[in-house]
Amino acid sequence: MRTFRATIAYDGTAFAGWQMQAGERTVQGELEAALQPIEGRRVVVFAASRTDAGVHATGQVASFSLDSPIAVDALARALNARLPADVRVMRLEQASDTFNARFDARCKTYEYAFFTGEVLPPRLRHYVWHLPGPLDLEAMDRAAALLVGRHDFAAFQAAGSRVRSTERTILESRVVASGDARQVLYIVRGTGFLRHMVRTIAGTLAAVGRRRLAPEDMQHILESRDRRQAAATAPPHGLTLVEVLY
Amino acid sequence: MRTFRATIAYDGTAFAGWQMQAGERTVQGELEAALQPIEGRRVVVFAASRTDAGVHATGQVASFSLDSPIAVDALARALNARLPADVRVMRLEQASDTFNARFDARCKTYEYAFFTGEVLPPRLRHYVWHLPGPLDLEAMDRAAALLVGRHDFAAFQAAGSRVRSTERTILESRVVASGDARQVLYIVRGTGFLRHMVRTIAGTLAAVGRRRLAPEDMQHILESRDRRQAAATAPPHGLTLVEVLY
Repeated sequence: MRTFRATIAYDGTAFAGWQMQAGERTVQGELEAALQPIEGRRVVVFAASRTDAGVHATGQVASFSLDSPIAVDALARALNARLPADVRVMRLEQASDTFNARFDARCKTYEYAFFTGEVLPPRLRHYVWHLPGPLDLEAMDRAAALLVGRHDFAAFQAAGSRVRSTERTILESRVVASGDARQVLYIVRGTGFLRHMVRTIAGTLAAVGRRRLAPEDMQHILESRDRRQAAATAPPHGLTLVEVLY
Repeated sequence: MRTFRATIAYDGTAFAGWQMQAGERTVQGELEAALQPIEGRRVVVFAASRTDAGVHATGQVASFSLDSPIAVDALARALNARLPADVRVMRLEQASDTFNARFDARCKTYEYAFFTGEVLPPRLRHYVWHLPGPLDLEAMDRAAALLVGRHDFAAFQAAGSRVRSTERTILESRVVASGDARQVLYIVRGTGFLRHMVRTIAGTLAAVGRRRLAPEDMQHILESRDRRQAAATAPPHGLTLVEVLY
């Protein structure tokens, strides 16, 4: 048996997220359906991040194990030939037998994209959160920087979540102008994230950018550990998983 | 009555092109449907370029006339509120009473996008022609440059077209690397284009890029005035109308 590590890109628009759900089109479901005829039985695929419906990926990492003797290059071509065009295996390599994309991930990078122009260009409509009007990028970046370090992020997790610990470590958290400057990007890198954490931070950064919150309010919200203190969760389609490190 | 000039962007993926056709979803049809309740009767919309199914626009120009006293800003907002998200009025202004976007256009710029990477990133799938493998950009650019000037472009028009004259003037015609360098862009600016002309040139440039044709063959094909000498028409989804000058 060989274990593989696949770098996966997908356009999340038409997916009900990563994880298999009965009756729903999911990225995991498409990958497992493409692997099934190669292995002759169901193959379980693990991913670094179980992204939500509408969330995109350029650098998701998935792992799975096969008994089939197929060569790595032939496997990559066979998968892309079977997969729909909105999900692609960008890179495929053999990994150590014990490699698991979900449990071995050390660090993930996400980007959340805002568009501030008055009218949303059609090509961007599935990939940015449209926030017409000026955003104070300097204030957003200062607020974002306050999240770097090890903190209890309970204030930024989805309501009703139950996880053992809500402490996470953020290594990088910054806001930059992108593309034609009407695009704004929040870049965040960390060892792990709570459910909806990046989107809730993005929603709170939008409130800072619009000067409904001060940058320092990010600190107060974080310390409150109270989800009701943070702003509304930003929509999924602005979010992209860009890189996973092991 | 006032006449308006609208700069229109659309994602051509889900459109059967610009021009109204019974039973088909077209950009003209969507714009006229959005204008109808404002004016209380059908309003005919003219466009600089009647783009084909699948072809995109970031700078299409359209014109129409209204008796309605609605203010320009309110009209732009009302149109975007009624239009589906894959077509947007990016700019709207009052024009001279005699302005016609189709007949007054002096110069149009199109871009045709190729993607040369082995695997096509999902987000690009509707916007580039996927040509995996190396392209000789220098040869393509030399071939493209041979088209500048006033020429008979009969070799590059859709089979079966009937137009009075197949002479057109090309002002700019060049090939450049774009984005992450696996993207290649053909940029062409001219006073007018025959049906499928840019796509047939793009198909011929692809053959030059893959060294199936020499750059000088572009000259021979042009001089032949014979559609059968040029390569196959490139697919529509790589093409974008980017600018129209008046």
